[in-house]
Amino acid sequence: MITRLHQEESRTLLREGNLARLGCVVAGEPYVVPVHYLFDDDCIYIHSLPGRKITALRAHPRACLQVDEIKDEFHWRSVLAFGSYEEITDADERERALNHLFARLPHFTPVESAMTQVAGTPETIVFRIRIDAITGVSESWS
Amino acid sequence: MITRLHQEESRTLLREGNLARLGCVVAGEPYVVPVHYLFDDDCIYIHSLPGRKITALRAHPRACLQVDEIKDEFHWRSVLAFGSYEEITDADERERALNHLFARLPHFTPVESAMTQVAGTPETIVFRIRIDAITGVSESWS
Repeated sequence: MITRLHQEESRTLLREGNLARLGCVVAGEPYVVPVHYLFDDDCIYIHSLPGRKITALRAHPRACLQVDEIKDEFHWRSVLAFGSYEEITDADERERALNHLFARLPHFTPVESAMTQVAGTPETIVFRIRIDAITGVSESWS
Repeated sequence: MITRLHQEESRTLLREGNLARLGCVVAGEPYVVPVHYLFDDDCIYIHSLPGRKITALRAHPRACLQVDEIKDEFHWRSVLAFGSYEEITDADERERALNHLFARLPHFTPVESAMTQVAGTPETIVFRIRIDAITGVSESWS
């Protein structure tokens, strides 16, 4: 039986996760990519190299983040967070967001220097999705 | 470094997987849900109870299926399959698709009767996404 999650349960799942699928709209068509993220209760923070999703979100800022825990087809929870794209260009805010994102990744310590080189380069885009709605559903989850 | 996957590598990943994220467009907004699927080289088969994604796909049939393997943020593969929604209403074809879908699920045998009751009920929608484009990318994957 599929049941709706309480708002707080949905927020907890978003807070504890770090891997989402980001949906956006490219020329009227759906487009979905995996992203690592950080949720701070108002916004979801993401970093990315330039590419199709960034071009898409600049043109059409609505986004949907989907986060789940799936044991099998009949035991799962899934949360959707809807919001709008905002690029972070202020240098201090950008560095703060990148530091928080890196600190959340499980293998931060061993490859810290590589990550800083890869993800902190000037071409890296840092953005947030300002969340305006969260919904969650589960099946046979306790 | 992010590199494009060969078409055959993308198709193999789709063929071997059974869990995708389905993106569609609801009133101009992106919408993403996890789905179990079967890929037969032309189409992706899915079953579902009635709900928001079915209503959305009937209204706007374009869909994007995203399938990935993710070791960590810097080691992953992700494939996108784009196509159009087609509902399967012919009774024989519907039963064939459901049987193939069930046979792919890892825990088929122990809960076979429960699954048949749950997923094979008359209200279950069986549909395919007829694929017209597949793309794939990977980072540090060998």
